[in-house]
Amino acid sequence: MIETIDYRKGKVRIIDQTLLPGEYRILELDSVEQVAEAIRSLRVRGAPAIGIAAAYGMLLSLDIILREKSGIDRQYFFDREEEVMTDIRGIEEKQILGALARAGELLRKTRPTAVNLSWAVESMNDAVRKTERDPALLVQSAARKAFEIHREELSCEYNIGRFGSGYIRSGMRILTHCNAGGLATAGYGTALAVIYQAHSEGKDLTVYADETRPLLQGTRLTAWELDREGVDVRVLCDGAAASLIASSSVDCVVVGADRIAANGDTANKIGTLGLAVLCSEFGLPFYVAAPLSTFDLSLESGDGIEIENRSGEEVSVIAGRRMAPPGVRVYNPAFDVTPASYINSIITEKGVITNPDAEKIRSFFDDHSGR
Amino acid sequence: MIETIDYRKGKVRIIDQTLLPGEYRILELDSVEQVAEAIRSLRVRGAPAIGIAAAYGMLLSLDIILREKSGIDRQYFFDREEEVMTDIRGIEEKQILGALARAGELLRKTRPTAVNLSWAVESMNDAVRKTERDPALLVQSAARKAFEIHREELSCEYNIGRFGSGYIRSGMRILTHCNAGGLATAGYGTALAVIYQAHSEGKDLTVYADETRPLLQGTRLTAWELDREGVDVRVLCDGAAASLIASSSVDCVVVGADRIAANGDTANKIGTLGLAVLCSEFGLPFYVAAPLSTFDLSLESGDGIEIENRSGEEVSVIAGRRMAPPGVRVYNPAFDVTPASYINSIITEKGVITNPDAEKIRSFFDDHSGR
Repeated sequence: MIETIDYRKGKVRIIDQTLLPGEYRILELDSVEQVAEAIRSLRVRGAPAIGIAAAYGMLLSLDIILREKSGIDRQYFFDREEEVMTDIRGIEEKQILGALARAGELLRKTRPTAVNLSWAVESMNDAVRKTERDPALLVQSAARKAFEIHREELSCEYNIGRFGSGYIRSGMRILTHCNAGGLATAGYGTALAVIYQAHSEGKDLTVYADETRPLLQGTRLTAWELDREGVDVRVLCDGAAASLIASSSVDCVVVGADRIAANGDTANKIGTLGLAVLCSEFGLPFYVAAPLSTFDLSLESGDGIEIENRSGEEVSVIAGRRMAPPGVRVYNPAFDVTPASYINSIITEKGVITNPDAEKIRSFFDDHSGR
Repeated sequence: MIETIDYRKGKVRIIDQTLLPGEYRILELDSVEQVAEAIRSLRVRGAPAIGIAAAYGMLLSLDIILREKSGIDRQYFFDREEEVMTDIRGIEEKQILGALARAGELLRKTRPTAVNLSWAVESMNDAVRKTERDPALLVQSAARKAFEIHREELSCEYNIGRFGSGYIRSGMRILTHCNAGGLATAGYGTALAVIYQAHSEGKDLTVYADETRPLLQGTRLTAWELDREGVDVRVLCDGAAASLIASSSVDCVVVGADRIAANGDTANKIGTLGLAVLCSEFGLPFYVAAPLSTFDLSLESGDGIEIENRSGEEVSVIAGRRMAPPGVRVYNPAFDVTPASYINSIITEKGVITNPDAEKIRSFFDDHSGR
């Protein structure tokens, strides 16, 4: 797994993803402002990862105020491995609540539409609200919640990997698209969790990573992650996947998901649909790996999923160089929707939904209600 | 059409394609060396275009020697529009043959594997060999052959466009891949000849041009050509085509071909196969536009077509910037093979082969033998 984010010795540690794959640099953030800046400028990215970053940013605000005002001489108060706690005397309840509120507001505003970010800030606030008005208890429950958010995310991803690895035999060649990997999450990812788990079980794998235009997450992030973990990875242009699938030069396709409707229709990075259709045509299994939180049961089908159209510059300008003639229009949807009928299985942290449809998904949620 | 190449007033005129789409510059080449350099460095590219360039390079060698040695005071001897010819006195047969032979050898070596290049040089040599040993007649037949090569190519492309336009109704939205356009040919192209012809007949069209990774011919060349001709064109990432096809946001796909086997299996730019499978799945017609010279009847099926694997740097480095982690392997085939069963029609200069298979292709060639 990738140590995308952590809380160590009073600092939020992240991999600066804006420098990848050219440079691997760990940033140790020791102010809430720095955490906010890191989220804002995509140094840390991906829904689960920025949720954890927000929780840790709020925890950092407590570490700072305790260092300043508790009268206890410590370099740090919290660490994920040690979970350092101590008696607090020289600090008042309202100072703690004020620090948390300020940090939460600042962090929430960094990317206003990110659901996980608001969710993490709310979870921290809720944990504190439910606590008795005692400074030591307040601090304790905030710290516990932050570490719990991280731990639960890791465990969710680990379980996706465990269920998914059941589909992977040694010697398999697996195609993936975009980066459904550790860098976007707590460390294992979703599609890549399956690969990491199979790899850690000693299975011999070859992974083909679509470069994933326009933003090249496959080339920049997936290839970097897998290579670093010692998985045999090859990069290819998105258009080259068809020839691999048609000639059975890969054995299956595994992708993540951005949103799954109640009937199993799945929105994922643009380019996913074509892979699913090709798998169906040439008899290869097509798997979606995603946590239950990705399902939006309020949407009956994929028709209800709104597709974000992004700036044409992402396509027409590469590495600062304009490739298209000036003024030419660009069609640049961020996602496409793969109908459930093309999906062999959706792999979740609670188990696998095979040949997904509305009924199977409803009964799966009934069986596993309450993540 | 695009004036990719021409012979005007004793000079070979080409569009410098290495500057597109940033800059549109016409080069007037007035030495054989300059023509050779232009072919070598891909200022002029595409099989038909470099064939014509070689013929015109040889013609230029005659223009030069006549200016120097004929004793006739003219600025130029040949021009495609005027086809200037004149009496020749002060020049010997062996000077003419020597100039042609030197030019032919130099030009042939610029891109040793290009079939059209050798073919054009041979055609010029043949035309001269069949002529009486008279300086005026030799020069005349060389000039006629050079202009004929250009004219026949134009007429071939024009006829592809004419036959193909029959499939295009006003209001249609057409997807194309790579650049099967005027820039690679005498001016109309193959897939784009269909579009140019329909456009010139007043049909209202929208063209979606796949960017075509890794070399981005769609973004750089197809979008430039079509935009310049006033055709409404939009660029998209290769992976985004699936969502257009699945939602019937396009009405058909038209592509060119690099090589067609005797049973209709078609090798074309990587990424073509996926489009053909998607069209079949979602009920859209998939057309291949190609001259009869693209057929290789010695190959029973697409299995016999060797696929060139190109440098990984084309994928891992874009606009001079390395995108992939160092050392990661790249899968970069230049072409894929679309089975004939996915092709609705092959549009040639002699007519259309619908639902192509070995028998239909054989009988089509029997009917139209001798291009």
